[in-house]
Parts: sequence; C-alpha cells; structure tokens
Amino acid sequence: MRVALVQSSPVFGDIGANLRQLLAAIAANEADLYVLPELCLSGYDFDGPSQLAPFAQEAGAEPLEALARAAAERGAGIAFGFAESAGGKLYNSSCLALPDGRRRVYRKTHLFAREKLLFSPGDTGFFVEEFRGLRVGIAICFDWIFPESFRTLALLGADLVAHCANLVLPYCQRVDYARAVENRIYVATANRVGIEERAGRRLTFTGESVLVAPDGEYLARLPAGEPAVAVARVHPAKARDKGLGELNDLFADRRPELYRLG
Amino acid sequence: MRVALVQSSPVFGDIGANLRQLLAAIAANEADLYVLPELCLSGYDFDGPSQLAPFAQEAGAEPLEALARAAAERGAGIAFGFAESAGGKLYNSSCLALPDGRRRVYRKTHLFAREKLLFSPGDTGFFVEEFRGLRVGIAICFDWIFPESFRTLALLGADLVAHCANLVLPYCQRVDYARAVENRIYVATANRVGIEERAGRRLTFTGESVLVAPDGEYLARLPAGEPAVAVARVHPAKARDKGLGELNDLFADRRPELYRLG
Repeated sequence: MRVALVQSSPVFGDIGANLRQLLAAIAANEADLYVLPELCLSGYDFDGPSQLAPFAQEAGAEPLEALARAAAERGAGIAFGFAESAGGKLYNSSCLALPDGRRRVYRKTHLFAREKLLFSPGDTGFFVEEFRGLRVGIAICFDWIFPESFRTLALLGADLVAHCANLVLPYCQRVDYARAVENRIYVATANRVGIEERAGRRLTFTGESVLVAPDGEYLARLPAGEPAVAVARVHPAKARDKGLGELNDLFADRRPELYRLG
Repeated sequence: MRVALVQSSPVFGDIGANLRQLLAAIAANEADLYVLPELCLSGYDFDGPSQLAPFAQEAGAEPLEALARAAAERGAGIAFGFAESAGGKLYNSSCLALPDGRRRVYRKTHLFAREKLLFSPGDTGFFVEEFRGLRVGIAICFDWIFPESFRTLALLGADLVAHCANLVLPYCQRVDYARAVENRIYVATANRVGIEERAGRRLTFTGESVLVAPDGEYLARLPAGEPAVAVARVHPAKARDKGLGELNDLFADRRPELYRLG
C-alpha cells in the first residue's frame, strides 16, 4: 500500500482554486491512499460562522463529489478535510472517500482555539474503515495532543491514522513519533503551508508533513514552507503486530483496571 | 524546587557498593527531590526469582532505611527503584521517601521482557504525593510506553512524574517529550548506564536521563555512557496550568465519552 501525504497551500476562500491544486497533486502521484490537510478546500481562519457558512459543504456538494470521483477513477482512497454543514450546524470534518463508493465523515473531536467560535464539537466519535487490507482511522489536527484519540483508533483496529492537519504549533510532528511507537501504528500527518493574515490575526502553518512507521521511523518528512507530496509504502502486518520482543504485547499488556481516565 | 536526576551505574548484585554510590551522588548535589534509576540497589538482569530473592528488600530493610535517612537529613525527597519482597512475592518497585517520614511504594504496573519471569505485576496502581508544594507521581521504566500511565498520574494531579528507569530501548527519551507536552507536566526520567552480560544475555543501558518541562523544553539531558547528575528547577504552577492559548484547556477539553480505552 502506497500512502501519499499531500501538503498543500490553500487560498483562503477560493474553493475552486484549492480543488484544482489538490486534484493536480493527486493526479501527479501514484498512491493507494492520499491524505490531504484539514479544511483544505476553504482555508482556515474565518472571522465567524457567518463568514464561514458559504464555504461549508453539505453531503453531496460538488467539491466533495469531485474528490470522491477522483478516488473512484484512481482506484484509491482520499482523506480530506473540509468545512461541513449538516443539520444547521458547522463541523470541522474529514471525509474518507473510497473507490468502492464508501464515504465516512469524521467530525473533529477536539477543537483548537478560534475553531470553538466557528464549529460545533464533533459528534461522530472515532471509527475505522478497512480498505484494500489497510484499516484506516481519521483524526484532525489538534486531536493529536490527546493521546486518547490515537489510542482509541488503534484499539478499534486502525493500522494507520490519516491525520488531516493545519498545524500552527511546533509540537505535533515530534509527538507523532510517540503516537506511532506507543500504538505500533502508522501515523500520516498531512499538514498545510502558507500564511493567513486577517483582521489583525496572523497564522503561519508549519508544513513538515510526516509519515511515521510503527517502529518510529520517519518514512517521509516534507519541507516546512512549500507545497509538496511524498509517497511511501506501508505494511498493515507491521501495524497488526503489537509484540515487542518475545514477552511483551503492547495491547495485551495494558492494564485498564489500573488506569483512571474518566 | 530543584530536581536532581541521578544517573548511576549499578554493580550487579552488590547492594553495599550501589548504596554508597547513590548516597555519594546525593550528598554531592543540592536538590529538593532526587530521582534515582529503577532497581538501582541490586542491578537488573537476574536469571530467575531464586537468584533475585536474596537481593529483594522487605519494608524496613536497612538499604531502604539508609535512603530514607538521607531524605530526612537533607530535607529532600528521594525516589528510588528497588526489588521488593512482600507477602511472598517479588515486585519491581520504587519508593518515594520524604523528609517528614512518609514513604510510598509504587509497584511497576507494566513489566518488560524477562521481568515477567522475575516479578509479580504491580498491584498498587498509580498515586500522587504532595511534597513542599510539588505533587509527585511515580512511574517505572516500561510504564512510559503506555500513555495511560502518565495520563493517569496527571489526572490524579501530578506536577512531575519521577520516572525511575533501566532503559535498553532507544525510544523513551524521545517519547518523554510527548508525555510532558500532552499532560503539561514535568517528566524526570532517571536512567542507568552500564552493561550487564550474563548467561548469554547482554544488556546495554542507554543513559541520557532527561528532565522535560510541560512545554517540551529539555531542562536536562545527561550523557549516554557514564554516571552523572543534573539538577534543574521546576515550577509546580507551570504544570498546574493546563491552558493552551486563550480558548483551550488540555484537561477540560478532553472528551472521555468519545474515547474507547477498555
């Protein structure tokens, strides 16, 4: 299985331009699964819900269909972040579009900073979809700082977490090492680049998208400041083996009766 | 509060020599809390329980008393790992000896590799003791790979995890970064150095003891191959503030209803 990290540079509020940029990056790189950044169609730092609403997509909207068609045409999965409109609410969501027509939408569990002023907290919870022998879970950006996010996905059976990100803090790309090692899974963080400067706010997105293997090896690391794509191979069997030496198994050795996590 | 990482090089099976080495390192460095390695009195890689048993300490045994007296005399806390004998069982334990006479023993929750052939799994669970305004939790070595260990301690209120280690894998000192950042706590990993070569087995302990701050800064990092001590200041208030920017709080933002961790 070849996994592509698509590190894009969205144009704020220009869904057409962003979609073209993403489809071109997908068309130019052979992979079985493409992971795209958070909110990669709309841009990130909206002033408020009323400014965001016109850029939020309902189920069946054309930009989502365009990416789903690309998945079907290429025989590949595509995980992409988008602003979702559903039931009168706005969510920071990611869709996993699979070539057989399946689509699963994950709504971000842990909202970061001003996202709390724009979006409703996600209500889907975490889930895993199997696709060509690879079990894929989805997380979005700030979910990374809560170890429970990736742990939950790993315990649900994820071999790989497609992590759609718009990172502005410097921590995540280093913590991904821990997320991979502690769960013995692949972590694919597709981050964006670029600067958004609006209404006295200035956000610099940190790029450096990474793909980390279950043993902590960085299989790919993209540059900090420019759009780029990396493709690397992943092996589900490596993520299914939770063994560490002859006597340990990272999942069997857990002792939930001694954890207090409520 | 000054925290000392004591990175020692135990002599296998020579409790007297190891105790002298540790007491000398403590005497030579001013601190409020000393963190010593796992099994720092006995050495690590025993062939089996019958070989280990003579080196295991019961409550009140002289080597434990000697370290508790040092804590009282220096007006400091000392966290140290030792092989414990209790109720006919052997445990891989750490004692937190405080200058007011309190002693709390933690028995390692997650046993690593051949420790499973030597020790019973810990039955104390995780706990936190407050000492001079600092809330200290204890973890031992392999506990690091389970994010639930440090998460449980942080949710119980730990400002700092005294992490007594005998690391042979290369992962932990990098993952400590995540353990600190995700919980906004101090992580003090006191690791040992040296090589144990017995019965066809060879273990090289990796040193590089680290003290990581709640923001991920490495306040201390010791060398890989030799005994050493580092002292650095910690500030409980920094660990109590779980805020990240104006709108996030890493504990209030948790959503346990969406986690599946059983």
